[in-house]
Amino acid sequence: MQNPEVELLQWFNKNPERLREYRNQVEVIDTLQDLKRSDVYIVAVKDDAIAELSSEIPFEDQLVAHTSGSVNIHDLDKKLKRGVFYPLQSFSGDRMLEPNEIPICIEALEKSDYKTLKALADTLGFTFYKISTEQRQTLHLSAVFVNNFVNQLYRIAHEISDEKKIDFNILKPLILETSKKMLHLSPYQAQTGPAIRDDKKTIKKHLKMLNDKEHRKIYELLTNSIKNTHGR
Amino acid sequence: MQNPEVELLQWFNKNPERLREYRNQVEVIDTLQDLKRSDVYIVAVKDDAIAELSSEIPFEDQLVAHTSGSVNIHDLDKKLKRGVFYPLQSFSGDRMLEPNEIPICIEALEKSDYKTLKALADTLGFTFYKISTEQRQTLHLSAVFVNNFVNQLYRIAHEISDEKKIDFNILKPLILETSKKMLHLSPYQAQTGPAIRDDKKTIKKHLKMLNDKEHRKIYELLTNSIKNTHGR
Repeated sequence: MQNPEVELLQWFNKNPERLREYRNQVEVIDTLQDLKRSDVYIVAVKDDAIAELSSEIPFEDQLVAHTSGSVNIHDLDKKLKRGVFYPLQSFSGDRMLEPNEIPICIEALEKSDYKTLKALADTLGFTFYKISTEQRQTLHLSAVFVNNFVNQLYRIAHEISDEKKIDFNILKPLILETSKKMLHLSPYQAQTGPAIRDDKKTIKKHLKMLNDKEHRKIYELLTNSIKNTHGR
Repeated sequence: MQNPEVELLQWFNKNPERLREYRNQVEVIDTLQDLKRSDVYIVAVKDDAIAELSSEIPFEDQLVAHTSGSVNIHDLDKKLKRGVFYPLQSFSGDRMLEPNEIPICIEALEKSDYKTLKALADTLGFTFYKISTEQRQTLHLSAVFVNNFVNQLYRIAHEISDEKKIDFNILKPLILETSKKMLHLSPYQAQTGPAIRDDKKTIKKHLKMLNDKEHRKIYELLTNSIKNTHGR
């Protein structure tokens, strides 16, 4: 991490082999007893491992933040100063994101700890938001809708079009444009298509074309959802 | 339309007032009897109006293409040379798209007509694909999934987060990134989240958070769809 104001001191991993490529940039440790004193400790492990790992940190009264969208801030060991530093983004393999593409949802029990986490996010160029536990859990749920579920709709389109030997590339500009519209329209304003027009003929035709029962159910449910939203 | 090789001769509209702002760039007509001879006529009207309008074109054996994703090519009047010039994209208000963001699905009954439509798309800078009637109708159905239904998932996320006074802007980088992943990953490869991990604890928690019965149904159905796709 190259930033004059933020220094990454150490990186802990139980399997330090996995951090081999970073060894020249940062000190890699595999035992928590080797932890140095630091302003902030970021615990980026899977949800179920957060409580235990935080209890093993060999300091008291240090600021420790987890990065989970759903784990309660109180799951961190109570001997610590506790915070949350939740990046609301989806990271995959080799794709590098700019800091301003990563919103950080910050939570802390103490005002001074919130300030520290805010300064960290700000200095690194992230956008950041003060978020309550309840809001963070709702954001995590919302993220399932706009990321995992949206991706599954892409998958269904992929399946349907593959069956007819259609190049999936044809759909990509529409996929991109649908998301880009959110930068200047609300989802309510952006809606188009047979459901909002209550175009029964097209809806019937589409349902007839869907061979998969589950795809038909999804089509019907989302069509009704659009109709309900727009009062059809 | 400024292109040395393609000239837009006329623009017909029953309500020429709606084309007022273009009057200095192109001849606007409001009666089909004023149509001049041209290499191609593009019929960009709503689905139900295509057959009738095409029957009123006062020429025979001219190439006429409609722009619909679902109307049969044979719905164009049979005295004409018939084609389809279907842009698979979603256009909204004042948002200008580059030609390369608009894939054109081309269909024609005669090889020579296909060539004419291909040359038109190519000259204007569009990407184009040769598509059968069945493929085009499947693309139209796929577009409902990746555009209208995806947009409704954005809407649901908007509703859920509004309820907790969460700024919808926090979700926009994730919305964009989810679509951008399709440029280098398949939807199958890109999937993450509680459903693919079969994370029952989080799924249960999310369902409990959803107050709206329809939202719960959509959550359950898409979670199962992801599980089925990935064999959980």
